[in-house]
Amino acid sequence: MNKLRIEHDSIGTKEIAHSSYYGIHSLRAAENFPITKQAIHSQLINSLAVIKQAAAITNYEAGLLEGTVKDAIVQASQDILDGLFHDQFIVDPIQGGAGTSMNMNANEVICNRALELLGNKKGEYHILHPNDHINAGQSTNDVIPTAGKIATIQLMQQLKQTLHTLILALEDKATEFYPILKMGRTQLQDAVPIRLGQEFHAYAIAVERCTNRLDSILQELYTVNLGGTAIGTGLNADLYYFHHIVPNLSRITHLPLQQAEDLVDGTQHVDVFVMASNAVKTCAVTLSKIASDLRLLSSGPKTGFGEITLPAKQNGSSIMPGKVNPVVPEVINQIAFNIIGNDVTIGLAAEAGQLELNAFEPIIFYKLLESIETLTNGIKTFTDNCIRGITANAKRCNQLVTSSVGIVTALCPYIGYGQAASLVKEAMTSGKTIEELALHHQLISQEELAIILNPIHMTQPGISGKVYKSNLS
Amino acid sequence: MNKLRIEHDSIGTKEIAHSSYYGIHSLRAAENFPITKQAIHSQLINSLAVIKQAAAITNYEAGLLEGTVKDAIVQASQDILDGLFHDQFIVDPIQGGAGTSMNMNANEVICNRALELLGNKKGEYHILHPNDHINAGQSTNDVIPTAGKIATIQLMQQLKQTLHTLILALEDKATEFYPILKMGRTQLQDAVPIRLGQEFHAYAIAVERCTNRLDSILQELYTVNLGGTAIGTGLNADLYYFHHIVPNLSRITHLPLQQAEDLVDGTQHVDVFVMASNAVKTCAVTLSKIASDLRLLSSGPKTGFGEITLPAKQNGSSIMPGKVNPVVPEVINQIAFNIIGNDVTIGLAAEAGQLELNAFEPIIFYKLLESIETLTNGIKTFTDNCIRGITANAKRCNQLVTSSVGIVTALCPYIGYGQAASLVKEAMTSGKTIEELALHHQLISQEELAIILNPIHMTQPGISGKVYKSNLS
Amino acid sequence: MNKLRIEHDSIGTKEIAHSSYYGIHSLRAAENFPITKQAIHSQLINSLAVIKQAAAITNYEAGLLEGTVKDAIVQASQDILDGLFHDQFIVDPIQGGAGTSMNMNANEVICNRALELLGNKKGEYHILHPNDHINAGQSTNDVIPTAGKIATIQLMQQLKQTLHTLILALEDKATEFYPILKMGRTQLQDAVPIRLGQEFHAYAIAVERCTNRLDSILQELYTVNLGGTAIGTGLNADLYYFHHIVPNLSRITHLPLQQAEDLVDGTQHVDVFVMASNAVKTCAVTLSKIASDLRLLSSGPKTGFGEITLPAKQNGSSIMPGKVNPVVPEVINQIAFNIIGNDVTIGLAAEAGQLELNAFEPIIFYKLLESIETLTNGIKTFTDNCIRGITANAKRCNQLVTSSVGIVTALCPYIGYGQAASLVKEAMTSGKTIEELALHHQLISQEELAIILNPIHMTQPGISGKVYKSNLS
Amino acid sequence: MNKLRIEHDSIGTKEIAHSSYYGIHSLRAAENFPITKQAIHSQLINSLAVIKQAAAITNYEAGLLEGTVKDAIVQASQDILDGLFHDQFIVDPIQGGAGTSMNMNANEVICNRALELLGNKKGEYHILHPNDHINAGQSTNDVIPTAGKIATIQLMQQLKQTLHTLILALEDKATEFYPILKMGRTQLQDAVPIRLGQEFHAYAIAVERCTNRLDSILQELYTVNLGGTAIGTGLNADLYYFHHIVPNLSRITHLPLQQAEDLVDGTQHVDVFVMASNAVKTCAVTLSKIASDLRLLSSGPKTGFGEITLPAKQNGSSIMPGKVNPVVPEVINQIAFNIIGNDVTIGLAAEAGQLELNAFEPIIFYKLLESIETLTNGIKTFTDNCIRGITANAKRCNQLVTSSVGIVTALCPYIGYGQAASLVKEAMTSGKTIEELALHHQLISQEELAIILNPIHMTQPGISGKVYKSNLS
Repeated sequence: MNKLRIEHDSIGTKEIAHSSYYGIHSLRAAENFPITKQAIHSQLINSLAVIKQAAAITNYEAGLLEGTVKDAIVQASQDILDGLFHDQFIVDPIQGGAGTSMNMNANEVICNRALELLGNKKGEYHILHPNDHINAGQSTNDVIPTAGKIATIQLMQQLKQTLHTLILALEDKATEFYPILKMGRTQLQDAVPIRLGQEFHAYAIAVERCTNRLDSILQELYTVNLGGTAIGTGLNADLYYFHHIVPNLSRITHLPLQQAEDLVDGTQHVDVFVMASNAVKTCAVTLSKIASDLRLLSSGPKTGFGEITLPAKQNGSSIMPGKVNPVVPEVINQIAFNIIGNDVTIGLAAEAGQLELNAFEPIIFYKLLESIETLTNGIKTFTDNCIRGITANAKRCNQLVTSSVGIVTALCPYIGYGQAASLVKEAMTSGKTIEELALHHQLISQEELAIILNPIHMTQPGISGKVYKSNLS
Repeated sequence: MNKLRIEHDSIGTKEIAHSSYYGIHSLRAAENFPITKQAIHSQLINSLAVIKQAAAITNYEAGLLEGTVKDAIVQASQDILDGLFHDQFIVDPIQGGAGTSMNMNANEVICNRALELLGNKKGEYHILHPNDHINAGQSTNDVIPTAGKIATIQLMQQLKQTLHTLILALEDKATEFYPILKMGRTQLQDAVPIRLGQEFHAYAIAVERCTNRLDSILQELYTVNLGGTAIGTGLNADLYYFHHIVPNLSRITHLPLQQAEDLVDGTQHVDVFVMASNAVKTCAVTLSKIASDLRLLSSGPKTGFGEITLPAKQNGSSIMPGKVNPVVPEVINQIAFNIIGNDVTIGLAAEAGQLELNAFEPIIFYKLLESIETLTNGIKTFTDNCIRGITANAKRCNQLVTSSVGIVTALCPYIGYGQAASLVKEAMTSGKTIEELALHHQLISQEELAIILNPIHMTQPGISGKVYKSNLS
Repeated sequence: MNKLRIEHDSIGTKEIAHSSYYGIHSLRAAENFPITKQAIHSQLINSLAVIKQAAAITNYEAGLLEGTVKDAIVQASQDILDGLFHDQFIVDPIQGGAGTSMNMNANEVICNRALELLGNKKGEYHILHPNDHINAGQSTNDVIPTAGKIATIQLMQQLKQTLHTLILALEDKATEFYPILKMGRTQLQDAVPIRLGQEFHAYAIAVERCTNRLDSILQELYTVNLGGTAIGTGLNADLYYFHHIVPNLSRITHLPLQQAEDLVDGTQHVDVFVMASNAVKTCAVTLSKIASDLRLLSSGPKTGFGEITLPAKQNGSSIMPGKVNPVVPEVINQIAFNIIGNDVTIGLAAEAGQLELNAFEPIIFYKLLESIETLTNGIKTFTDNCIRGITANAKRCNQLVTSSVGIVTALCPYIGYGQAASLVKEAMTSGKTIEELALHHQLISQEELAIILNPIHMTQPGISGKVYKSNLS
Repeated sequence: MNKLRIEHDSIGTKEIAHSSYYGIHSLRAAENFPITKQAIHSQLINSLAVIKQAAAITNYEAGLLEGTVKDAIVQASQDILDGLFHDQFIVDPIQGGAGTSMNMNANEVICNRALELLGNKKGEYHILHPNDHINAGQSTNDVIPTAGKIATIQLMQQLKQTLHTLILALEDKATEFYPILKMGRTQLQDAVPIRLGQEFHAYAIAVERCTNRLDSILQELYTVNLGGTAIGTGLNADLYYFHHIVPNLSRITHLPLQQAEDLVDGTQHVDVFVMASNAVKTCAVTLSKIASDLRLLSSGPKTGFGEITLPAKQNGSSIMPGKVNPVVPEVINQIAFNIIGNDVTIGLAAEAGQLELNAFEPIIFYKLLESIETLTNGIKTFTDNCIRGITANAKRCNQLVTSSVGIVTALCPYIGYGQAASLVKEAMTSGKTIEELALHHQLISQEELAIILNPIHMTQPGISGKVYKSNLS
């Protein structure tokens, strides 16, 4: 009883376990690229499967594939979409060859599965061939960028949903914290009063901008180069197939995909992935800034700013009992650092494309999908395990406003910048408040001061009828 | 005769040359930050000046500034816009303090110039004060981001024009080179035929995408935070001023500026500059790829690809006579490398913002304006000194098509991938052509071959009525 | 029969499967950080285990732990080193909290395994406690950086061995290819002759420099901060333990570890990992350049440089039969792009450290270990599947030398740069050789030319007695 | 009276102002590369001049140049070193062509100046020629990397001196602040006590490591490739010259320069500059972390940590009077962000080298010299305008220690982690101190507590005779 089959290609032959759905190309590639020892992203595998479905259907409609063959390919691909055979994708996400190995891995798995479905044995490629039938009308060079786009789109839609939930959570906190008055800080130095709710509202708005940008890049990602085959000229893509493959793929995926007008461009330039990474990176940068703010605002509990308290999610220290650390914001920072690095990698890989093809798409997809997915995961825990549980230390917030000298700014329109600066200096050395000193120096009446120095007033635009009078006259 | 004046601030006093329009703040900042020894970008200086004009006008309309003072400030600012006093901006582009030093440098220069225009002496700040009058209703924290946006917008519009010229030049070459047949290359290996004009058309399309993205980011840049003052709450911005400053600035600059809906967000988050840098970087990545392609295609003249010739613009070597190097594409590569690095810097600086302000705007503007300007300059020389003068070596291009075995791909729909691969192997060892071998093995008739292997046919989609028949039956 | 146990901490309680060796802290952390869904690097897990061994032994020697407890901890740790229980490390490599979760995961697994070995049940922490006993004298903040260093050292030593093998392979090729004369190219343009062996020798030397730099960084990595506990002050580290923990760890690991002189510095600054990443990055940059060279030199087979042939390791295309692509060098490029991005991430994470601790060590270790390991893996396949199988196309190399005009450089000392440049121009338009033209213009005798234009002579220093005479006299 | 001269090269002719020392090559290059509009770094210009001196002397010694010519070249170069003619270097720092334009700019300026010194007119290249005489025995490809190294070495030595001054200033502060007890913070949360002086000592040690790494890279930089000419084979370098050029250059520069053993490697690989950038970047990362710490520690004055006060160097705000911001640390952060970006650029440029040469050296030198110089400048102002003037707020530091619950850690060896955690929880809710609660629960005697909770004891290693007893028996 033979457990092995022999496959051959123009390089030679290889023994393959008969249970394996992958074939000789995949095996060679797995041996050539034992780099990360990780798996290809399942979303990318599924995107390959759906493309193979669309291609089989389109070739069938064009009269180029028999119905039984089409059905077998469609079903074999569907099996993959249903979660089967993902373990048969044995090639490394970092691989030479512009994704040929991924594409061939899909071709071989689908071919062997289809052979089975047709009542044949795996490896009987004289009956059904990975290249001639599964890959018919296609090339790695149009399949892989298209698969990369579909996978990116789908992960990006998940990211968008997650961001939406975060925005709602931030808006809730903005409402909850609207009454709380606190000092604003610029350059970590006491500035002027603000409402804690205004801070959280600003976060919500900033995150909302991120989602708008994702929408914008999604529009770009819908343009695919399927039909261009090897270098975008469309060689070996039957004309019916050429015109119907993208509409068919669009129908199957429920995505508004369009064929690129210039497929030569669409095959060799990967700038759209750089843009996608950019949008994700900018989102990560914004979130990391917010995470750092939360770490600052919750610093303490006794020796820091202490204006808010983050929910305690795990013990903070193996040596210091009772310590609770801002571990969830910290993971957001780290995700952002990683995404910024990934963005560099993606930019380099895009820049290094040569002539009719960018051979470095595998690393682009590997890092881009990682960026999107880790950000999505991070935002989920950020929303659930941090934002939603934040509580405000209103008393502390108020005390800091009272003790600060930053409120002197409101006096500027009345007494001028120079005199106001002198008051601050005196306040810092004397320990007296700005109000006391303003009265002491008879700069302004007590009634006026009560209005001007009301911190609530300071959290909104306006001065009270003051003229910036020069001393000209 | 005393050539010095004494200015003082809350820190102390400084002697300042009486001829200087800058004041004590600028001088301190120049002493504190002797970092790059470069000047602030003139476009940024002009943007500050135009903001000061708009603020003076708006404060005047609000009844907060006298007409004579307003007129003096407007004229002093106009002098700067007319190119005067730029040497009075003595602070370094890399400076601590979120741009306070730049803003104060503008305030002081305009104040002293306005004092002169009003018939007073420089330094008579009791009459007209840099903070109380020039900076009235403003803060560094709304002025500087707004100035950064205006400067970015204006440089970006120049970039767009330059890109437009490049696109036209590439399209001209696409047309000129349309008849020239050549081999396409993927992964630097012989692939299938393409027209040289198709390659240049793809370049034109890729560059066109860059300009569309600049349009998209310009829309974001039009939203400014003027009116938000110190931390976005609008403290000390008179209500009339608050509502009219941005419309007035829009009118003066002829830019469709809008006030941000959430000014707290608009003051502390600088993600729009990250996005601007991203768009510029992606453009640079695309151009660098094209530049590298041109270096490959023109490699030789005897030992390389030699398909095109770049115009000779300077001797290539100090030791090797007659050597002509692709120096203009090489400068594009270097500009791109620099922009990719700048993009990292800008991302870091944005991420490092804290609470109500990003203190690192100076480095963001310094690098972003450098990125846009060097790219603009590079594209100009690329268009004029490279693209427009490219000539094609049609004979060489054709010879390479004839000698290549890559055309075997067109036979796949007829003889299958496996047999086609065998032909290639035989061709490489025997030195015979694919056509000869196909006939020799009686795989296909001479008449059919003439059609199938016509390289012109291979540069467009389609196969001739071939069915990808499985061997099921 | 209850399959769950209840654990509690100061936050609350959690149900844990009784079969699990991890405890409440690990479970909370796994829930808080579902980011990459990858495992902690096994080398990092092992490094934690060996530190726990050394700590138990040292605490025992100090009289702080009983012998039976020490023995149980040592054995439990040894089980991990023997490859057991790695699946019990459930926390994500990207985690908030400076590695507390990793450290506690180790503490809990070892504690529960030791409890078992002592005849108790998992979770009986009143008998043996993850913090009080397994973590005794330690803090995450000295354990994690030390573990990171040990893991880095061990992966780096593997990298060194792999580099050594690559150097030998390159040197073999340098010897094999020494006789082959070819044209050198600068800026992709024909320069002057060189031996193919000289090119490979240069590669070998460049790679050798990489290994020297790894040696240099290894010296830095041997300095660890164990004994510093929470912030480097050594609080709660018994004095005997303090002085003996590092020598004991050194003995067990067979590594020349030393305790940092300033443990406060050693706890908060992670610059050594930035340096480690730098050295790895520079190595990757060098290898990527070499890989790109090999792709250029092997470009073709018909339309490229074609001077060498890389071994065929897999079919290059799903559509183009017989195509063989430089897939192994391409994977080196991609690994390098990734490492360059990782280096950015590591730099950011290091820069973001605050006060007594860098909370971002998890991402630093995650990316650094990935960089080292993927580079090691890449070099293995590069050596075995590319370098060793390279063959030279000597005939092609020679033809290109003969056809080139670059050899004119050798005439410069005799006829001057200006006249030599004229010869090149004439040669390019006339199609005549440099030699023919030099004779035709009677610039130099045939005998002299035979010596001067001998390409072999051009591959080594020297001119033949020529004076760079000015025309002064 | 004709003010122009005509120069010609193999491309054509150009009119040049007769007053200009540069020639046709420089002018063409200036027209081809109007990119940054900045000047070549003066240190790089000087390095070119000193190489030209050494080459002239060596060629003279080899009998290849007449004494009068040698003397003229040496004097012309010396004029440059004396600061003359730097305005004649008109080519942009970002330039195509691996530095040929810089090298030719030097050749032309020196040639024309030497012609003048010899009593001839500028442009009389038939008498003395930029290529044949000034560049004799050289190529851009050995001159430019060597010049880049010399410039890097000299700037790096200045950086080292500046770092040394900073270290002394930090050590002074370490001594001054040794008595001051404060809370340490990890992850911005209260940890355990530390001395302020310990923090500054850690900074000093970390900076010291930076200087050691610069020493290490300096050793690498001393190896130069002069003598290798175009591609490292030494073609057209006379044998005497070949062996004596580097010793002569070493003598003139007083630097321990050595000729690379493999000049082919030395010509094409620029990894040493990547390493140099790495070392500078790591130093910048360390300094940026320290700068951020100082911003945190000085945050306030009323609403922040407020443990130290930075010297007031300029008014912090244009709107908020009396505000003093940490502007000098902020500039350090920005310099670091820039250097991290530059490091990316340098890595990319190094990676993009092809075959016998790296054409992207100009951008490498431009960014590397900028990195070193801006860091040097930044450190100067950091030392003088920040570190030296820092004062400690001892009272505030002490109050925070007293109020903190972090000191509970010292109780762990006595009461265990679990019970200690409970105390913290109770302390946070009840407002009672750890000491009060430990007594209240009769966990430990008052006498013992006095010893254990003495914060000074907590700043050094050790526990008092405690056994980590398990509950086995």
